[in-house]
Amino acid sequence: MNKIAEKLLRIISDYADGFKGAFNIREDGQCVGRQSTPNIRIDTKKDAPGLVIHISPHAQKEVVYIPACVTHGAIDDLVYNDFYVGAGADVTIIAGCGVHTDSGDMARHNGIHRFFLEKGAHVLYKEKHIGTGSGTGEKRIDPVSNAFLSEGSVLEMDTVQLKGVDNTVRKTTARLAARAKLIIHESILTEKAETAETDFTVSMDGEDSAVDLISRSVAKGSSRQTYHSRIMGNCRCSGHSECDAILADQGTVNASPELYAGSIDAVLIHEAAIGKIAGEQIIKLRTLGLTEEQAEEKIIEGFLRA
Amino acid sequence: MNKIAEKLLRIISDYADGFKGAFNIREDGQCVGRQSTPNIRIDTKKDAPGLVIHISPHAQKEVVYIPACVTHGAIDDLVYNDFYVGAGADVTIIAGCGVHTDSGDMARHNGIHRFFLEKGAHVLYKEKHIGTGSGTGEKRIDPVSNAFLSEGSVLEMDTVQLKGVDNTVRKTTARLAARAKLIIHESILTEKAETAETDFTVSMDGEDSAVDLISRSVAKGSSRQTYHSRIMGNCRCSGHSECDAILADQGTVNASPELYAGSIDAVLIHEAAIGKIAGEQIIKLRTLGLTEEQAEEKIIEGFLRA
Repeated sequence: MNKIAEKLLRIISDYADGFKGAFNIREDGQCVGRQSTPNIRIDTKKDAPGLVIHISPHAQKEVVYIPACVTHGAIDDLVYNDFYVGAGADVTIIAGCGVHTDSGDMARHNGIHRFFLEKGAHVLYKEKHIGTGSGTGEKRIDPVSNAFLSEGSVLEMDTVQLKGVDNTVRKTTARLAARAKLIIHESILTEKAETAETDFTVSMDGEDSAVDLISRSVAKGSSRQTYHSRIMGNCRCSGHSECDAILADQGTVNASPELYAGSIDAVLIHEAAIGKIAGEQIIKLRTLGLTEEQAEEKIIEGFLRA
Repeated sequence: MNKIAEKLLRIISDYADGFKGAFNIREDGQCVGRQSTPNIRIDTKKDAPGLVIHISPHAQKEVVYIPACVTHGAIDDLVYNDFYVGAGADVTIIAGCGVHTDSGDMARHNGIHRFFLEKGAHVLYKEKHIGTGSGTGEKRIDPVSNAFLSEGSVLEMDTVQLKGVDNTVRKTTARLAARAKLIIHESILTEKAETAETDFTVSMDGEDSAVDLISRSVAKGSSRQTYHSRIMGNCRCSGHSECDAILADQGTVNASPELYAGSIDAVLIHEAAIGKIAGEQIIKLRTLGLTEEQAEEKIIEGFLRA
């Protein structure tokens, strides 16, 4: 593994000179380290680049790491990862991604993930994205996630775009069976001329399924963010979505949350708020000795973490 | 004026054997009565069917009635009405529409309204829509409203679709200059296999302009409603939108409220809620002696009026 990859791994995936448990490290489109465990088997995908990960029902409170790095320009990495999570398993998947270029060439990662959760499985999926390097080449991360939640399963997705990603298009779809639950927390920070586009489609098809979708955006510089969600309640179910954005400088945000109630037993709620940081908040922190910039940074940090 | 027209007028426009003040009555595509007043001049439009209405700055607390009726099938009435509202005028425009067919032929009204509000003008625009008659012909009302609000002007739109309109597509756009204010209350009731599609685009272009958009929907039977709004804040301004829907039977609603903040000084907020009537509300009213149906009716009535 090269130095840049190691540095990226520390930021995106809790890497500390190695991983405990199951892992696969992808560097510039190649596998540079892999380990399976008795309950988590990581295989090479046969029909396309990527992994097939089988998590047995015996996996309880286990963690699997599948970080990916692009460490220089002229790499356009496309990968397909499939997760089969056995009934009643309880696992954390850590799937960060870093793209780095010091040249004028683009560094891109495009990870297409499918999650198949069997009955009662519980998955916490964590993902941090970052772009680094002094190059003028575009840094892109374009994730696609498709989740299939069987009866009573729970998928929590905690996704964060830290900074430095020039352009991103994020697409997430999910289908929920009876009593399945999907919880998404997304935080995206854009600066300079960056753009971020995010799109969620969640279909609640089973009785008493539920989704809670929380999106936080900070658009600084002249960056532009576009948010679209579509929550479909096709049965007795409940959906809640919330998208809040903070603007700074000339940043712009377009938020378009869509609710479709196809059954009278669907209960769907949405809230959205867009605005800049309130002056009083800044003043309060300045009286505590922070500069205006430090105050702004603190507020944004807290907002993205909320 | 025929009996059906008279009956429709009573429902949609507070008609009581005549109007006080300025009015124009449109029946089956023809003018069947018109009166101007010193401050409100109603002229026939020269380049298209419809009216040009000039409201002078001297008009204060005056009312102008411009109801339209289609009283039988095989009428597809298209009308263009332009309102020029002088600086500082304060008027109420009552513009209801009823469509009636006892045959298998369609009865349709398609009213295209433009509102030009000069500095400081205040307009309350009220509109009730209804479809009646025993025919199988389609009853359609497709209104288009384009509003241009000069500095400090206020437009309040209070629009209600009572019942019986088979299909409607409603399009409203508005551009707001500095300190202009737009307040929209829309209520739509659909039943049977009716459909309603409503679309708002509001662009806040002047400092301290504001929009408040409240939409209430009740979808009964197998009716389908689609709501889309796009509020654009391009400067220091505030926007609030709220769309709430009650579902009954197999009714469905799709709500897609969009917020675009193109300036960090735009403050935009949205809320949406879709669901059926809570059981407790019904029980409460039943203990007061109402049947379940009466209770439901009361709740829906209150909801649409709120």
